[in-house]
Amino acid sequence: MNTNVVGVDMGGTKILSAVVDAEGNILSTAKVPTQAKDDTSIVIDRIAECIREAFQESGVAPDSIQAIGIGAPGPLDPETGIVIFAPNLGWKDVPLKTELESRIGIPTFVDNDVNVGTLGEHTFGAGKGIQNLVGIFVGTGIGGGIILNGELFHGASKTAGEIGHIIVKADGPKCGCGTRGCLEALASRTAMTKAFQKAILKKGKKSILTKLTDGDLGLIRSGTLAKALRSKDKLTLKVFKQTTKYLGVGIGSIVNFLNPDMIVLGGGVVEALDDKFIDDIRKAAKKYALPDTLKGVQIVSAQLGDDAGVLGAAALARQRLKDG
Amino acid sequence: MNTNVVGVDMGGTKILSAVVDAEGNILSTAKVPTQAKDDTSIVIDRIAECIREAFQESGVAPDSIQAIGIGAPGPLDPETGIVIFAPNLGWKDVPLKTELESRIGIPTFVDNDVNVGTLGEHTFGAGKGIQNLVGIFVGTGIGGGIILNGELFHGASKTAGEIGHIIVKADGPKCGCGTRGCLEALASRTAMTKAFQKAILKKGKKSILTKLTDGDLGLIRSGTLAKALRSKDKLTLKVFKQTTKYLGVGIGSIVNFLNPDMIVLGGGVVEALDDKFIDDIRKAAKKYALPDTLKGVQIVSAQLGDDAGVLGAAALARQRLKDG
Repeated sequence: MNTNVVGVDMGGTKILSAVVDAEGNILSTAKVPTQAKDDTSIVIDRIAECIREAFQESGVAPDSIQAIGIGAPGPLDPETGIVIFAPNLGWKDVPLKTELESRIGIPTFVDNDVNVGTLGEHTFGAGKGIQNLVGIFVGTGIGGGIILNGELFHGASKTAGEIGHIIVKADGPKCGCGTRGCLEALASRTAMTKAFQKAILKKGKKSILTKLTDGDLGLIRSGTLAKALRSKDKLTLKVFKQTTKYLGVGIGSIVNFLNPDMIVLGGGVVEALDDKFIDDIRKAAKKYALPDTLKGVQIVSAQLGDDAGVLGAAALARQRLKDG
Repeated sequence: MNTNVVGVDMGGTKILSAVVDAEGNILSTAKVPTQAKDDTSIVIDRIAECIREAFQESGVAPDSIQAIGIGAPGPLDPETGIVIFAPNLGWKDVPLKTELESRIGIPTFVDNDVNVGTLGEHTFGAGKGIQNLVGIFVGTGIGGGIILNGELFHGASKTAGEIGHIIVKADGPKCGCGTRGCLEALASRTAMTKAFQKAILKKGKKSILTKLTDGDLGLIRSGTLAKALRSKDKLTLKVFKQTTKYLGVGIGSIVNFLNPDMIVLGGGVVEALDDKFIDDIRKAAKKYALPDTLKGVQIVSAQLGDDAGVLGAAALARQRLKDG
């Protein structure tokens, strides 16, 4: 009998689910809006409905579904499956695992979205067969996950992988976390947006971004950045030089400290750009990592794209089932 | 029958060895000068002699010695036991493991001195029973080791744990490794010595260190620093404020990234100072680590002191024997 799992990507605006076989093939998918403003129990009903929809669509035997994996935002406890705090859902201490198990009756496993994204790349993507891997996801913020000896590493407080809060420049720009000089404060899309706003609005610099965002620089998305880079916009090139530099510093620190087999770069910003961005980051990392230490470390881009969430969640379901 | 091992601490000036029982009791010790300028084979003869001396001194049964562990300087291959490069010994590609095995006829295991120091604290010292631990040793440089799931973690290039080369201040002061802003360039005894030389020789600042070193600031040792701190020397207090700050930044990054159960601080500088130094480092780390992440992480001082080298090497021998 084939064994299948359901992977769920729980986002602030939409819920995606997919039935995934043992080889990582997506047999069916479903999508529903999150409508996070509703009562928590209604939102969880909606997740259950999305799972059932994907399941019915797939046509697989009911008892072939072994487990459900969910990647959810925010700090959460991967053992109890309680989402501790998820601002974009308005959730606090929500027992997502047990609530779903009582609705569907199938073992359910929860982990945070960046851990799940990292595990997905390890199981089905760029990191197949790699023992020790660090995932770095560059978007609004910078998140990450760590795989050690082939398994997700959670750490003492279940919060390992906060790569955005490696300090790369002590006394540098203020970070959302309250301290200064974190990688996220220097190389996330939010950091880039601030740099653009300062250059254009305060210093009067010209940039195609003014036109691309209809003058509202708060609307800079990863796709906007890709367009501006393609048009060789001077200011964008300058800001990206800083971004790749600091990503290089952060990666250099990780390489020197942990010396993993592979670093996988993903997230909105990385996915919107072409391979030159990864090349530039590799070159920057070379300036900061010890040569003999960097030698064994591959730095590659994520491969799963839009499917990363559901495939990662499917990988989570399989790994946790295997671990008992 | 009791099972014993020999632990060897291979330094640039002296070789220490000890017969150690399963509980970490030192049954006997021996010490010979390294005289590293001699031929490599003569120096290795001397290590063998030092091991035999400790063994004879102990009075244990010859066949109770199960293995020999050696902590040696420099990048080395822990599998083959080849010391790749050790400037302070003048060694390049020296097959230390096989050379000793052919002289003594007992399985011999080699790892670098900071890894061995970390393993010693994990097995017999501050980190007993801890699963995930990072050792940080502050002396002339800053070295470190990583224990994951109870075992030394070596990484892709066998160089994991280069904590001195985490970049804490991009574009900061130049480091011996060629890049800028490494932890070692900001918080090692070498970095402190540079800061003292600049303040006293270039800026004409007064300090008790001038008297304590007879005017040769190149002679600042960890004990000298301890004396200057005890006398509340203003310049020393100021330099130490920077040192603890940057150690806090580095530890903050490690806590946020890896979230280990424990960080053990050792090395000449830490050992020469009292508990206030560790307290100050803890406070500094609190400024840079995410509160929920730091919660689960103990920051403590190393316990093995002068015995760290031989006990760590004994722990290495036991762990590698066990791993087969």
